Amino acid sequence: MWIYGRNPVLEALREGGVRRVLVARGVERKFIKRLQAEGVEFELVPRIELDRLVRTTHHQGVVAEIADVRLAEPEAPLALARKRGEKPLLVLLDGVTDPRNYGAIIRSAEALGAHGVVSESRRSAPLSAVAVKASAGAAYHLPVVQVTNLPRYIEELKAGGVWVYGLAGEAVRTLEEADYDRPLALVIGSEGSGLRRLVRERCDELVAIPLRGRVGSLNAAVAAGIAIHWAQAARRG
Amino acid sequence: MWIYGRNPVLEALREGGVRRVLVARGVERKFIKRLQAEGVEFELVPRIELDRLVRTTHHQGVVAEIADVRLAEPEAPLALARKRGEKPLLVLLDGVTDPRNYGAIIRSAEALGAHGVVSESRRSAPLSAVAVKASAGAAYHLPVVQVTNLPRYIEELKAGGVWVYGLAGEAVRTLEEADYDRPLALVIGSEGSGLRRLVRERCDELVAIPLRGRVGSLNAAVAAGIAIHWAQAARRG
Repeated sequence: MWIYGRNPVLEALREGGVRRVLVARGVERKFIKRLQAEGVEFELVPRIELDRLVRTTHHQGVVAEIADVRLAEPEAPLALARKRGEKPLLVLLDGVTDPRNYGAIIRSAEALGAHGVVSESRRSAPLSAVAVKASAGAAYHLPVVQVTNLPRYIEELKAGGVWVYGLAGEAVRTLEEADYDRPLALVIGSEGSGLRRLVRERCDELVAIPLRGRVGSLNAAVAAGIAIHWAQAARRG
Repeated sequence: MWIYGRNPVLEALREGGVRRVLVARGVERKFIKRLQAEGVEFELVPRIELDRLVRTTHHQGVVAEIADVRLAEPEAPLALARKRGEKPLLVLLDGVTDPRNYGAIIRSAEALGAHGVVSESRRSAPLSAVAVKASAGAAYHLPVVQVTNLPRYIEELKAGGVWVYGLAGEAVRTLEEADYDRPLALVIGSEGSGLRRLVRERCDELVAIPLRGRVGSLNAAVAAGIAIHWAQAARRG
């Protein structure tokens, strides 16, 4: 996977996972010096080669190849919880298609100590370079799963004793009122249309983040972050 | 301000605040029909006119002019809290430069019932079309302030009896341990370098969102959302 642009490449270098850096001939000396000062190895190539690699001319003269992220097996999140001796906390995504939101949710899940992010392959953003970038490297450390059928995955989780809470703005019960002291999956819907009926019906409970403004919803990554943080805070007691 | 692309324009039409829609001649009939079916008024213009307006060719044949957002006066957030008879809850941004994060924070602040978002003009993303879009229209409903000197603004808030909490990953005290039953401002730092010393020193308290993963930080908009939600939940008791 290739990422481009000066800040994205410099950030990726700090986070690790960069395999190669290509710099366009004729780029400002100042930028070259900065890379050299930071001990970055890079190849000078014709600018047109960068254009071709990332299919845009907006690369500011630098691209980097980052390591591919392997999707995890559907069992990986529960296995991670077991290994850590923790009550499972999974994040399920029903139709989050924006790769930056997808990456930010993976980042939150990893940073806040959840055990995996599961989405449905046809209805999810792909685990692209943009998503991996937005995850700030978390996609390398957390099980990221894509299943073919999310409702079925939910059924399997429930059969295994996991409670499933769906975030839904219209729910009567609030996030604060729910019980987190059990194996748990939190389902986040798409910003446009929320949870599909097939997903909603399978949730043990629907909970709402209390809103009081004129804007009736939150960014999907923000909503996910609030829910994961709340669940973990409730477990800490 | 001009926004472009089919989904952004369709979303903006749903949210309101769109003044004009321009469509490139020769765009697919299906899209034209969709606009007509939704009762959208638009002008057909040469494609090159769109290229010029939004300075890119990636507009998918449609651009929309949205209403400018007026920045609010520095006093507006406290005035709003007074008007509502609520304890002030302000969100201060110290170096959040990504316009999508800026917009998402405005959206969270409005939706969760905070009274304003204040940043420093030189060190903030501008309140651009991208930011307004990411705010899902919240920028039209919430005081959004840009001051020339954030440390001085913090001093003035403190002189007026507002407590200032800075979010800082390295803080010993956690978000959960702080007291929210007072007039309050939450300061969010930049993702790269956190709070500036001049800002940090002026905070009454530094608090951390408890993290336990390998990724040492959250997306700035996610961190802001978690902090605002927690403060409001604590106030609800």
